[in-house]
Amino acid sequence: MWCQSCKEEYEEEDAGTCKECYEEASETEEELKREIDDLRSRLHFLRLPSPSLDASSLSHSDLLLHAIPADAPARPDTPAVPAHRVILASRSPVFRAMLENEMEESRSGIIKIYDVSYDVLRAFVHYMYTAEALLDEQMASDLLVLAEKYEVKNLKAYCEKFLTSKVSNDNAITHYAFAHRHSAKQLLETSLAAIMDNMSTLADREEYKELVEKDPRLVVEIYEAYLNRQVNTAAGKETDSSSRKG
Amino acid sequence: MWCQSCKEEYEEEDAGTCKECYEEASETEEELKREIDDLRSRLHFLRLPSPSLDASSLSHSDLLLHAIPADAPARPDTPAVPAHRVILASRSPVFRAMLENEMEESRSGIIKIYDVSYDVLRAFVHYMYTAEALLDEQMASDLLVLAEKYEVKNLKAYCEKFLTSKVSNDNAITHYAFAHRHSAKQLLETSLAAIMDNMSTLADREEYKELVEKDPRLVVEIYEAYLNRQVNTAAGKETDSSSRKG
Repeated sequence: MWCQSCKEEYEEEDAGTCKECYEEASETEEELKREIDDLRSRLHFLRLPSPSLDASSLSHSDLLLHAIPADAPARPDTPAVPAHRVILASRSPVFRAMLENEMEESRSGIIKIYDVSYDVLRAFVHYMYTAEALLDEQMASDLLVLAEKYEVKNLKAYCEKFLTSKVSNDNAITHYAFAHRHSAKQLLETSLAAIMDNMSTLADREEYKELVEKDPRLVVEIYEAYLNRQVNTAAGKETDSSSRKG
Repeated sequence: MWCQSCKEEYEEEDAGTCKECYEEASETEEELKREIDDLRSRLHFLRLPSPSLDASSLSHSDLLLHAIPADAPARPDTPAVPAHRVILASRSPVFRAMLENEMEESRSGIIKIYDVSYDVLRAFVHYMYTAEALLDEQMASDLLVLAEKYEVKNLKAYCEKFLTSKVSNDNAITHYAFAHRHSAKQLLETSLAAIMDNMSTLADREEYKELVEKDPRLVVEIYEAYLNRQVNTAAGKETDSSSRKG
C-alpha cells in the first residue's frame, strides 16, 4: 500500500485514513490557508503607521505622551511619544474615559504615563497602531503591566502568552509572583506547575527566600497546591488499585 | 481496515494516508486554526469604530466628506460623512497626497467626493475603518470604482472578488465591459470565459448590442479570444491524434 501523502509504502496496520477522508482533509487545509491569506491582507490594511515627531504635518498627532520612570526622574531631553486621540480611545477604555471627559489631559493633549521607561511607552503606543510588538521577557513584563493598567486586553494576552512560553525551572518563582500580582491566569498555572515539578530544590532558591520575606501568602499557596496534587494522585492510585481488584 | 478519521471500514485500494501522515495532517490543521484565531483577535483589535456625526467630542473627526452624485445635485439635507485625516491618509495614497500638501481640502477639512451617492460614500469610509463592507452587486461595483479612484487596493480586490463570484451567463457581458473599464483582471477573465461558453446566443443579447454601439473594440476582443481558443483547441487535438498515431 502506498501513502497518497508521503508516497511511501506502508503496512496495513499503519493505515491512517481512507481516500475520501484524505481528500477532504486536503480541501480543509486549502480552505484554512485561503482564510489565513484573507485575514493577513485585512490585517495589513488596518495597521496604521505609528506617528513620529518629525513626520509631515499630516500625521501630526493631537496627543503627546510623556514617560515618567519609577526609579529616576525623566531626563529633560527624553522626547514625548506622539499619538492620536481616535486611536488611543478606541484601544483602551481608560484612555477613552480620560479623553471623553473634560479632564486636564483631554484639554491639554498631554498625558503623563507613570512608572514606565520611554522605550516601553514607545512599544506600547506602537502596539496600539499595529497590533505588533517585539518582545523579550523584560519588555513583555513591562508591557503587560501597562496593558493591565490601561485595560488593553489584547496586548495583555499577547504578553502573557509570550511569558508563558518562557517559563522554566529557573524563572518559575519569579513568573509565579508576577502572574499573581497582575492576574495572569495562564502564566500562573504554567509557572505553578513548573514549581511543583521541582519541589525538592524549592527551599534552596534565592527567589523562594525573597518571596517568603515579601509575600509569604503566595508561598503558602504553592504548598497548598502541592499537597492538593499529592492527595489527588494518591486518591487516583487508590481508585486504580481498587478497580484492578474488582 | 478502519479509517482513523471517519471510523468506517474501507478496502485496501481506498487507502488514503499512512498513520504518520494522518497525524501530521491533524497537527497542521490544529496549527492553522490557532493561527486563524490569533489573526482574528488582532484584526478585531485593529478595527476602529467609524465616526458618526452625533458621537461624543472624542471621536469628533477632523474631516467632512461630501457625496456629490453624478446624475442629480446633492440634496441640501444630505449629511456629510465625518472621518479622521490619519485614517484616510494611511489607507489611500490619493488622500495622503491631498492632505499632506497644502491643498484647499487640507486647509478646510472638507472634501467633495464626486459621482457617488451618500450610501456608497458611507460604506467606503466604513471600510477604511473596519476592512469590512456589506456588498451586493451594485454596491460592489460602486465601491470598486471609488477604490480605484482613491487607490485603495485592498477594497478594490475585495469588491472584485465578490463580483467575480457573481458572474453568470446573464450578466457576463456587463461585467466584462465593467472589468475592462476598471482594469479588474480576475473579473475580466472570469466574465470572458462565461461569454465564450455561450457564443451561440451572444449576438441576440441586448447587452451585446449595446456594447457593439458603445465600445465595439471590446466586442472585437471577445471574438479574438474565442478564435484564439478554437485554434488552440484544434492544435491540441492535432497533437493528441499525432501522438496516438506515433
